[in-house]
Amino acid sequence: MNRRRRRVITLLTDFGTCDWFVGTLKGVILGLQPQAGVIDLTHEVPPGDLLAGAVALRAACRFFQRGTIHVAVVDPGVGSARPAIVVETRDYFFVGPDNGILSLALRRETVRRIHRLENSRYFLPRISQTFHGRDIFAPVAAHLSRGVPAQRFGAQQEDYRKLPWPEVRPNRGGLRGEIVYVDRFGNALSNVGNDWLDATGHEWVVRLPNRHLCPVRPFYQAVGPGKPVAVAGSSGFLEIALNGGNAARVLGLRRGSVVTLQKISTR
Amino acid sequence: MNRRRRRVITLLTDFGTCDWFVGTLKGVILGLQPQAGVIDLTHEVPPGDLLAGAVALRAACRFFQRGTIHVAVVDPGVGSARPAIVVETRDYFFVGPDNGILSLALRRETVRRIHRLENSRYFLPRISQTFHGRDIFAPVAAHLSRGVPAQRFGAQQEDYRKLPWPEVRPNRGGLRGEIVYVDRFGNALSNVGNDWLDATGHEWVVRLPNRHLCPVRPFYQAVGPGKPVAVAGSSGFLEIALNGGNAARVLGLRRGSVVTLQKISTR
Amino acid sequence: MNRRRRRVITLLTDFGTCDWFVGTLKGVILGLQPQAGVIDLTHEVPPGDLLAGAVALRAACRFFQRGTIHVAVVDPGVGSARPAIVVETRDYFFVGPDNGILSLALRRETVRRIHRLENSRYFLPRISQTFHGRDIFAPVAAHLSRGVPAQRFGAQQEDYRKLPWPEVRPNRGGLRGEIVYVDRFGNALSNVGNDWLDATGHEWVVRLPNRHLCPVRPFYQAVGPGKPVAVAGSSGFLEIALNGGNAARVLGLRRGSVVTLQKISTR
Repeated sequence: MNRRRRRVITLLTDFGTCDWFVGTLKGVILGLQPQAGVIDLTHEVPPGDLLAGAVALRAACRFFQRGTIHVAVVDPGVGSARPAIVVETRDYFFVGPDNGILSLALRRETVRRIHRLENSRYFLPRISQTFHGRDIFAPVAAHLSRGVPAQRFGAQQEDYRKLPWPEVRPNRGGLRGEIVYVDRFGNALSNVGNDWLDATGHEWVVRLPNRHLCPVRPFYQAVGPGKPVAVAGSSGFLEIALNGGNAARVLGLRRGSVVTLQKISTR
Repeated sequence: MNRRRRRVITLLTDFGTCDWFVGTLKGVILGLQPQAGVIDLTHEVPPGDLLAGAVALRAACRFFQRGTIHVAVVDPGVGSARPAIVVETRDYFFVGPDNGILSLALRRETVRRIHRLENSRYFLPRISQTFHGRDIFAPVAAHLSRGVPAQRFGAQQEDYRKLPWPEVRPNRGGLRGEIVYVDRFGNALSNVGNDWLDATGHEWVVRLPNRHLCPVRPFYQAVGPGKPVAVAGSSGFLEIALNGGNAARVLGLRRGSVVTLQKISTR
Repeated sequence: MNRRRRRVITLLTDFGTCDWFVGTLKGVILGLQPQAGVIDLTHEVPPGDLLAGAVALRAACRFFQRGTIHVAVVDPGVGSARPAIVVETRDYFFVGPDNGILSLALRRETVRRIHRLENSRYFLPRISQTFHGRDIFAPVAAHLSRGVPAQRFGAQQEDYRKLPWPEVRPNRGGLRGEIVYVDRFGNALSNVGNDWLDATGHEWVVRLPNRHLCPVRPFYQAVGPGKPVAVAGSSGFLEIALNGGNAARVLGLRRGSVVTLQKISTR
């Protein structure tokens, strides 16, 4: 990895943007590493919602250059005994509490080593019990971007905590999936990978919880205005959308809603 | 233009900030051009609202230095046949779908050339059908900032698509305009240019849809608390405000609301 | 101060992020100082809410490196006769209207000099009467970051305007404080300094307006799920939280709500 290249640090949190929290993280980072480029993934993960944060981190992380440091802080257990970790993979560093927030992203990475964040030399001098984003995770990210190796931060551990992920199940020659995320447009992302669809060579239709059938098409406007459509989503999963509307609201989709893929009968 | 100067890339979208979309664009840009300075204009254009996005782009774009690359992605037709373009003007580059989103800004610019975005060499290797912001517009902007000339991206075209813009009309010795945008403070921006007011040398009063009359004053606090006031707005258009309040909500103003300027009778 | 170090400029406003206002400030700053690093503290101060903005600025400003330029624009009196100032302290510069927005941060700083922003040479060529953030404060910050000394901007003044701050009062062997800020998690920050608690050596309990008693604990999860807890907050003040919930909403806390600290009886 080119040492001279400016390392990017991404931030994903549930801190919101109404208060001063995120700005403070950046102040800490820039104080330790003035050359850092800090990029917000999002700070509007619903408070404490590990699955939403983990889906977002997974969807975004691979669009960053090698060597990027991804910091994810959704941390309802802040101050308690839950460990904090840095995970070095072949391409990236991931920093956050070891509560599952990193786990969906890490499923696709080649993990090299995992170390606990224990060495207070790399923290702020005074650690609050309620804001480790500022006092621990931000300074650790800054030190990483200066080239401090992962093993300096604390003891190695073997594995990281995983969030339960709903696996797709076969269902009468088709597939039973579920909605795992709803985005700002009301598009409902499922757990059905795009590659699965491509691989079958069949044509499919999606049955929604309201029993409506929804065609699979290449883009939103391939159906009439206001009509539902399933597309191979940009984050790698089949998503249910409405051409020009909010699918989740109109069709009553939310996390956990069941979607069933059925082969199109060709009679 | 000084090649050594770091080129700024601005982003204006309807992607919101709840999800990972905007962060992903920045990852793509920084991966191709680590020196890029990326500035958010706004990402909270209402989904698919071309006029709101176009007004915002027009209001902001000229406050950036020459050579800035303005990327605007409000793109309900993503994936369909609508073209994507780069417009080189005397002072800037504009990048986006050719659906009108760029048109209000371009009305004031000296257009040099317009090229379609067709050359997939400058896109991400895999193009989704639902997220051209990430897969096409972001990498094109990064390549532009590295000095790739506009003609490399695709065939030249003569014109760009224009949004309908409500023109101001004369009305009994006065003027009939309408509201085109409501900002976060509830200030309602009209389509009546500040320069028009200045040029007449008359004193004017604004008749609102609720038949109230609203004086034209230099700043908000020139009227009593809670009173309506029309001011020469900072984006070049007359705006209706409330001193210390939300004019749109209190006065029932929204896009399309008619405002009439009348000369003050001096009897 | 190292001149070669890139100076950071922070922005705190009530401009929101729906419109183009904040992006425009950054365009102005980067046009004058392309090397500036611009950091958002927050732009979602409720419109015109000086106390909320002042609390946020105070909480964040000291986490930035020496030499940082803090710009705070919550400015309901824009265009009227209220002065605009730059305050040079031992460690920072503060720029904003002289309406109290800077005052809570300045209470902790060593003020060196205060100058009015009067010299239009350092403003944009055309000054609107409604958007001094863009036309005055942003260019002044950029010029400061280029090394223009504070005295160049205008006449010196002796003092700055202070917001009323509710002082903590003794109350039957205990303390009577009040809530001054509610954050995005619904945590309610009081005016009772953490150091006061530490100094007493006693154990305390907090009586809420609904008469419930709330224990003081080191972190949120030290009480059961959904239970109220008072913690030494990360911004230096005692805060009332709910483990895994929204304290302000559930307990009816808002700015001005009275909280009383009582010694725990040890019978």
